Amino acid sequence: MPLPLCPFVPLFDNMNITLTSGKSVSCAPNTSILESLKKAGIFLTSSCGGKGTCGKCRIIIKSGRSDIRSKMKLSKEEIKEGYSLACKTYPSGDMLIDIPKESMLTVEGQIDTGKSRDFLALLHSAGADLDPLAGRIVLQLPRPSLDDNISDLERLKRELFANGLGCLRVPFRFMTHLAAIVREKNWEITLATIHSEDCYEITNIFPGNKKIPQYGIAVDIGTTTLVVYLTDLTNGALIDIASTYNSQIRFGDDVITRIVNATEHNELGNLKRAVTEDINNMISLLCQTHNISTDTIDCIVVAGNTTMTHFFLGLDPSAIREEPYIPTANTFPLSHAGELGIKTNPNIPVYAFPCVSSYVGGDIVAGVLATRIHKKNELSIFIDIGTNGEIVLGSSEWLMSAACSAGPCFEGSGMKHGMRATDGAIEGVKINCDTLEVEIKVIGKNIQPVGICGSGMIDAIAEMFLTGILNQKGKLQKDRSDRVRTGENGPEFVVHYGRDKDIVLTEPDVENIIRAKAAIYAGFSTLLNEAGLTFDDVHKVYIAGGFGKFLDIEKAIILGLLPELPKDKFEYMGNTSVIGTYLCILSRKMRAEAEDIARKITYIELSVSKSFMDEYVSGLFIPHTNIDAFPNVKALIGR
Amino acid sequence: MPLPLCPFVPLFDNMNITLTSGKSVSCAPNTSILESLKKAGIFLTSSCGGKGTCGKCRIIIKSGRSDIRSKMKLSKEEIKEGYSLACKTYPSGDMLIDIPKESMLTVEGQIDTGKSRDFLALLHSAGADLDPLAGRIVLQLPRPSLDDNISDLERLKRELFANGLGCLRVPFRFMTHLAAIVREKNWEITLATIHSEDCYEITNIFPGNKKIPQYGIAVDIGTTTLVVYLTDLTNGALIDIASTYNSQIRFGDDVITRIVNATEHNELGNLKRAVTEDINNMISLLCQTHNISTDTIDCIVVAGNTTMTHFFLGLDPSAIREEPYIPTANTFPLSHAGELGIKTNPNIPVYAFPCVSSYVGGDIVAGVLATRIHKKNELSIFIDIGTNGEIVLGSSEWLMSAACSAGPCFEGSGMKHGMRATDGAIEGVKINCDTLEVEIKVIGKNIQPVGICGSGMIDAIAEMFLTGILNQKGKLQKDRSDRVRTGENGPEFVVHYGRDKDIVLTEPDVENIIRAKAAIYAGFSTLLNEAGLTFDDVHKVYIAGGFGKFLDIEKAIILGLLPELPKDKFEYMGNTSVIGTYLCILSRKMRAEAEDIARKITYIELSVSKSFMDEYVSGLFIPHTNIDAFPNVKALIGR
Repeated sequence: MPLPLCPFVPLFDNMNITLTSGKSVSCAPNTSILESLKKAGIFLTSSCGGKGTCGKCRIIIKSGRSDIRSKMKLSKEEIKEGYSLACKTYPSGDMLIDIPKESMLTVEGQIDTGKSRDFLALLHSAGADLDPLAGRIVLQLPRPSLDDNISDLERLKRELFANGLGCLRVPFRFMTHLAAIVREKNWEITLATIHSEDCYEITNIFPGNKKIPQYGIAVDIGTTTLVVYLTDLTNGALIDIASTYNSQIRFGDDVITRIVNATEHNELGNLKRAVTEDINNMISLLCQTHNISTDTIDCIVVAGNTTMTHFFLGLDPSAIREEPYIPTANTFPLSHAGELGIKTNPNIPVYAFPCVSSYVGGDIVAGVLATRIHKKNELSIFIDIGTNGEIVLGSSEWLMSAACSAGPCFEGSGMKHGMRATDGAIEGVKINCDTLEVEIKVIGKNIQPVGICGSGMIDAIAEMFLTGILNQKGKLQKDRSDRVRTGENGPEFVVHYGRDKDIVLTEPDVENIIRAKAAIYAGFSTLLNEAGLTFDDVHKVYIAGGFGKFLDIEKAIILGLLPELPKDKFEYMGNTSVIGTYLCILSRKMRAEAEDIARKITYIELSVSKSFMDEYVSGLFIPHTNIDAFPNVKALIGR
Repeated sequence: MPLPLCPFVPLFDNMNITLTSGKSVSCAPNTSILESLKKAGIFLTSSCGGKGTCGKCRIIIKSGRSDIRSKMKLSKEEIKEGYSLACKTYPSGDMLIDIPKESMLTVEGQIDTGKSRDFLALLHSAGADLDPLAGRIVLQLPRPSLDDNISDLERLKRELFANGLGCLRVPFRFMTHLAAIVREKNWEITLATIHSEDCYEITNIFPGNKKIPQYGIAVDIGTTTLVVYLTDLTNGALIDIASTYNSQIRFGDDVITRIVNATEHNELGNLKRAVTEDINNMISLLCQTHNISTDTIDCIVVAGNTTMTHFFLGLDPSAIREEPYIPTANTFPLSHAGELGIKTNPNIPVYAFPCVSSYVGGDIVAGVLATRIHKKNELSIFIDIGTNGEIVLGSSEWLMSAACSAGPCFEGSGMKHGMRATDGAIEGVKINCDTLEVEIKVIGKNIQPVGICGSGMIDAIAEMFLTGILNQKGKLQKDRSDRVRTGENGPEFVVHYGRDKDIVLTEPDVENIIRAKAAIYAGFSTLLNEAGLTFDDVHKVYIAGGFGKFLDIEKAIILGLLPELPKDKFEYMGNTSVIGTYLCILSRKMRAEAEDIARKITYIELSVSKSFMDEYVSGLFIPHTNIDAFPNVKALIGR
């Protein structure tokens, strides 16, 4: 016999967390501040997904009592100053806290959305015309009579056949109301269609002439950020852009942490819902802003890395992270908005960019499509540096790809004062070779620096190397500068003396960067070796990804991240993933090209490549063990 | 501001209706007895759908108070005896009632299920082998490695291609768990598949070898009755049969009443649910009886008339009943159990037999498939007599069809003492030509007759005609027999003097039958005229439908329902609809033939045919105005 249930009595009331900005957030009992902030839509950086191990979600407690369950990664001074980890701080009463800039994930102005480009010109330059992925057909059906009494469906098919569209599938779901729809506007109807596999498929049926308006949604699902384009399919215009952080961040900063969460903590459904909700929010925002009915959206195209694509489609990603690294699929059958939880007309098709392998995804295929390297006779390199560095090498004849597990250090993760390239980040560093004085450039106007982002680190390390503060092995030279001191994690270089805190690069930070740059450079070399080519054969290097925006090519060459090639061979391309999805939604030819690219790219698994390991070890020097590959750097340092 | 809601207080308690059989049924306030019985699963005949106009749902009130809102179609004597219409009787307290046999819809032994046939022999005689509509394929995939690291989906497709199954579509929904499924049983998997349009489609994926068991469900959706076959697809065996009345009966006995209910009273959803529930109940019963998991059912094939098929698929049937009589579709894309509410694996395909026109449905196509007239060199007629009479004329060269709105009089509807061919029905009548004494044959053992069914009426009218009690025009001859008397509806013939009530055929009843037989005979003639042929060219007449089971061919010829042909040209085929679905589920060749038959049949719309009207008017005599077409009958009556 079941026991009688006790009436529900809450043990504690919710508490209030007030931010120094003035905002107030409710916190349920036994809930961390990180969790409570997330629920209120305030995202902090958190590489470990709230385990207390990455030390990124720092807050400063100004007042109020709390249960602090771990202080890992915090220095004694920081603890004294009130620093605490949001994921390990559980309020026991109302609190006042400050969120340092470097802990915040903010999106304004920080995501490269590619807004300024002329996409239609790009489309035409690719030899394609406006021929959207989804079309609309208006038909005037002849009214039935006793002499012409075929069924509504047969009448529709006969008319399609007469219009040369004999191969058009009518999914079962459209038949329920077909009788009413064909009769509503005097036998005139509009069909929304998509070319699927070997045939057209109907995705919507309207009474009357609904040829226009007709919109499309192109989405880049990044591990960290999402970008959504609203496009007018009738003229190719980019109506507007929305962008946001990927809410999956609460399950970890990188794909591996998220896969672990999905697999071992049964969070796949929540990961899927998180990104779906983000996309829904952006579609809804765009539609509201432009007074557009979701019924006029006819298709959605998304590109993301293989794991992001799996999450978005709800596919089990578990085998991606274990040797031999197998995704459920690299090419995805068309799905429908309804089955994915996208809040548009449930029947519209959702096309996911094909992937190449577990670690070279649809975002890279879209990037190749956008950079057009698959159509060039000369050899090109395409590199997208984010959490990983994905590289494609090739030309119109062949394409080869690899993923270097560079780690997220260029995004600030795992670095003592690392942060993303947002307001307050040191993005440029110059060291006077005579005085060794340091000049810094900070993102944002009149802002005190709070951390250092990827391009700042590269600058700093290159300058430190050129000025002898850092040796070829990445060791700090104490006797060379007063700024080299011993900190909690060993030797460190003070990039900026701050009022509240100094911004430093530690020796472990430098080692981190060297390992990352060695992995990427080894990726280039291994692919070239595989093809029997050298850097001299490379005509262009296309750099994609938000990180590239602030990158100083020369400094990256000095560091040995990029090969020493003439500066005009490098080109920064921005967010090529969303540009690729945009091209694809506007043109069936582009979709076919994307599928062709995915098929054509040969994937080289670097993690088991002997050649890659050798190259990697050779790259663990600045700029490289083989200094002769960097003659200008060699000349600069006079050795 | 919304008004505060009053707490719910029931106005009256439910009342009890006890049947003389002992069973007790609860009746909610303001609910008719018909409705309450339905809710308890007791179905009465009700042609009008509860409007009080058909007079079929008679009950006898033994005790208890009630509000009787109409007594239409009840005689004074009947009212005196306690007869009341269940649809118009609203209990105001507990009641005791008796349900006369003729009011009951009972199913036991009354539905021709075709159980005794050897279907596999039939299949082989049709030149087809066992090649079920749905198949299962077992695949052993090679385990992935770093050297063979294509995705799970590509691995599956590669293996299919190697097995000559390159054209196999994997619907998106199967990708969610693909990774887990392929790994569960060491990379061995079983695919359930169906050939759809131009390609195979996966309908289920299992880990390991699940080649057997594999079952199929064949369904005949009749307007009145449903028959379900459970078949073993691995050997073609008919495991078991279930049958029931179509619960849609509560929305009317005939298709037109149901379409009106669907269209004008918004009951389409309920009509669809009614038949779906019936099918679910029978599948569940069959699976429980034979300890079969629904996961082993791989496909469902249904055949029904065009309206039944529309209801089953949830398609708007409204245009079927209005000139120019247009169905939503005559051929139906494959649908899935899930989208139809069938409680099996939601992904298994449901194949609905193609129809020819609004009034020649999939049941007739299945009937042609079963009788094989489309493969015979000689001319055949196929006739299915139910509520309508559907006729197909033709051979292997051509097929032609028509529907005669004969009305449901052969099923007892609209006849004073008419009833279906169930226990207590007079199914045979003989009149001694000298003494004019009447001998009757009643369905059931030692049962008092309660009404007269279709074959009984045909017998009675033929005998009355031969003995001069009825003239050629269908008028009763008062001076010829004492049994001819004047009743409430004018002249009537007492078929049986009963203790409680006499069973009579009234002159309006006879007129009804004459109109129905005239329509059917005119249907034969019109089709033959269209083809430029005569009855002499007809090699065989195949009779289908439950009514035919009791039919005396000779009497039907005397009445002029059937043409005067040698008796061995007539063959009773039983429920050809379910036999056709069974053939189809066992053989892809049969499915292709069914589609070919539907395409091949030319439909002749009789309602607007001048020739049909002429033939019909000529048929309003017994046996026919043109008595020379019935030389034997002419000889018998000595004219």
